Amino acid sequence: MEFFQCMSLKEAQHVIVESLKKRTIFSETVHLINALGRIAAVDVVAKNDLPPFSRSTVDGFAVQSADTFGASEAASSLFSIIGEVSMGEESKMEIFPGNAVAIPTGGMLPVGADAVVMVEHVEQPDSKNLLVLRMVAPGENVIEKGEDVQVGATIIKQGQSIGPQHIGMLAACGYANISVYKKLEVGIISTGDELVGIEEPIKFGQIRDVNSYALGALLLEMGCAVTQMGIVKDSYEKFLSVLSKAVDTYQLVLISGGSSVGARDYTVKAIDALGTPGVLIHGIAVKPGKPTIFGMTNDVPVFGLPGHPAAAMTVCKQLVKIAVRKLMGFEQNVEPFGIPACLARNVASAPGRDDFITVKLTKENGTYKATPILGKSGLIRIMAQADGTIHIPADKSGIYSGEIVEVLLDKQED
Amino acid sequence: MEFFQCMSLKEAQHVIVESLKKRTIFSETVHLINALGRIAAVDVVAKNDLPPFSRSTVDGFAVQSADTFGASEAASSLFSIIGEVSMGEESKMEIFPGNAVAIPTGGMLPVGADAVVMVEHVEQPDSKNLLVLRMVAPGENVIEKGEDVQVGATIIKQGQSIGPQHIGMLAACGYANISVYKKLEVGIISTGDELVGIEEPIKFGQIRDVNSYALGALLLEMGCAVTQMGIVKDSYEKFLSVLSKAVDTYQLVLISGGSSVGARDYTVKAIDALGTPGVLIHGIAVKPGKPTIFGMTNDVPVFGLPGHPAAAMTVCKQLVKIAVRKLMGFEQNVEPFGIPACLARNVASAPGRDDFITVKLTKENGTYKATPILGKSGLIRIMAQADGTIHIPADKSGIYSGEIVEVLLDKQED
Repeated sequence: MEFFQCMSLKEAQHVIVESLKKRTIFSETVHLINALGRIAAVDVVAKNDLPPFSRSTVDGFAVQSADTFGASEAASSLFSIIGEVSMGEESKMEIFPGNAVAIPTGGMLPVGADAVVMVEHVEQPDSKNLLVLRMVAPGENVIEKGEDVQVGATIIKQGQSIGPQHIGMLAACGYANISVYKKLEVGIISTGDELVGIEEPIKFGQIRDVNSYALGALLLEMGCAVTQMGIVKDSYEKFLSVLSKAVDTYQLVLISGGSSVGARDYTVKAIDALGTPGVLIHGIAVKPGKPTIFGMTNDVPVFGLPGHPAAAMTVCKQLVKIAVRKLMGFEQNVEPFGIPACLARNVASAPGRDDFITVKLTKENGTYKATPILGKSGLIRIMAQADGTIHIPADKSGIYSGEIVEVLLDKQED
Repeated sequence: MEFFQCMSLKEAQHVIVESLKKRTIFSETVHLINALGRIAAVDVVAKNDLPPFSRSTVDGFAVQSADTFGASEAASSLFSIIGEVSMGEESKMEIFPGNAVAIPTGGMLPVGADAVVMVEHVEQPDSKNLLVLRMVAPGENVIEKGEDVQVGATIIKQGQSIGPQHIGMLAACGYANISVYKKLEVGIISTGDELVGIEEPIKFGQIRDVNSYALGALLLEMGCAVTQMGIVKDSYEKFLSVLSKAVDTYQLVLISGGSSVGARDYTVKAIDALGTPGVLIHGIAVKPGKPTIFGMTNDVPVFGLPGHPAAAMTVCKQLVKIAVRKLMGFEQNVEPFGIPACLARNVASAPGRDDFITVKLTKENGTYKATPILGKSGLIRIMAQADGTIHIPADKSGIYSGEIVEVLLDKQED
């Protein structure tokens, strides 16, 4: 029977990051339409100014702003209409003092013009003449060439996650294809003599394989390609052979479900057997999540996760996610945005241990309240009911009711 | 030239919800592994108690807790070891006073036992005898049958979005397949004589079709199946024919990109031509987003969105999303969780108008600061730099620097 010498959360995070430092991450080119949620593999710079020419932001008349000086409803300025800008066509006209050119929203500003008078602020006595009823300042109702993005500016940074707004930016700059890091391929092995597959008949004394589904879904959310390798039972030899195949096939391997000491012993032994440096973490000072294992078998990281679903999911969010992001090439080093909330009851914690408590988040009169979900640590229901998590760091022995805590939302992607 | 009679945001939201009230939403059955992010089409109830039998949460010995009364390091209680529980097998043993049975974490509690003594709190002089060094209370180190989920309890509600924790819950209850609402099929039409496709050569005076990509990505994030129907130029007849095909093919249609009054006139005319009740919203008192159109052509909702990318994305998040959720069967009526932050500078707004301001969010000494991103409203860069949005409701004429605002994160899914 083994007793853990637990590693702190901080140290475990450091060990994982250091172990994955030198990994090469491969990239591929995808069409912009498939780039959502992927990680940029290169810096992308604007090939042209954006907009590529000065554009009107309103329907109206392009003029030289100086000519409108003093114009008002009472004393309008007279202009000659010398033409019209067609949408989507290069304007070949040139504007001189006293000239005006009709222009639609988005139309290209003619040479010589520096502002647009809105159609609401003019009168047109006939097709040739225009009365301007209001002054416009230089640049008014115009987006200048390059005002949005200047040629050569970085529009997406290497390691950045690509959201809808970046897709828009890339489209604007004419990038139909973009180089992104390949999806991280993760294999999940379930272990445990008590486990039975979700589609198999179940006998008394057995339970369903929960973790390979819950963990698989978490990894899908993180953007990985996930393969469930099935449930391995009974023998160390079988387990070693499946794990050996996994580290040959995938870039990250999770072993889930073995809650007994025997299953954990298998995991440690097999990781050590399959390559160096082998097991690097064996037990962490985290609740829930203590019986966590991490090792490297010839450059492939392997996690042995706790059997309790809530513990496995917590470790997945706190440790596996760090490895996933590193291996996906994600380099946005931003602290996630948590929601400040008033804790609804005292929560005790042991100093020297990092605690993660699942909470319900409610809002009353504009103030957030975080209510810890009560129940034993093995319960699945606790995860299903939660809105988010609070973290009690190792240097605290608990948090009192009424203190302000920061809630990290389950569904927030940071 | 048309002047808008603008509808308030609230009213527009109400019109959209009312218009979509009677829509039938179809469901399909998917494997649990594909259910992430989908919306449950039925209430799902537990078919069995969870766990299906009382289980040990530790490695140790199952006993009758009353027998440990008074046990301590100084005065241990003696038990006879009558056997061992095997992982994943039904325990056929029965425990009587003075009996103990070795049990692994997750093992099934033998009949008669009501608690488990951790292996750390016993001594084993030989294979038959056990000394218990600590008292256990009834139920200690045990998860009782049905303690997590009782048979018949609702584990997922109809209309609920399925997250990793729900996937775990469904796996635990043996649901390999689940009934979810079909993905909403959305068609996006780009209009505007100035637009050119992302892969086409661009001429002076033209700009790239940004919105069909940015809006498409937003809708993908919301869980829709998106089809870009290309750019329609030049003629009303062409536009009418493409829109007619779109409302016959898709369940929701977005028209994007036409920033000129002419393009908007086309949109209104075509929606009215293709069915009743036709256009219901024409202009909203929202900044950015004023030139928004919404109508129904024989039960298919059609949005005409503003040409400016930032405006189109804002309207997509504030109005289109409401329609999407309604049509996807999403029924979680939760207010999204925003992050309280201190506004970094004064922001003016016109009373009677709802303003949405994009902000950068930073954290200093545990306090959040929201800094509005400056720039003209047509700029794409403003969206790309933002972390989130603040909302100035119609009854306010602005917010002062230092006031606390609520920031809705761009990437947060509520």
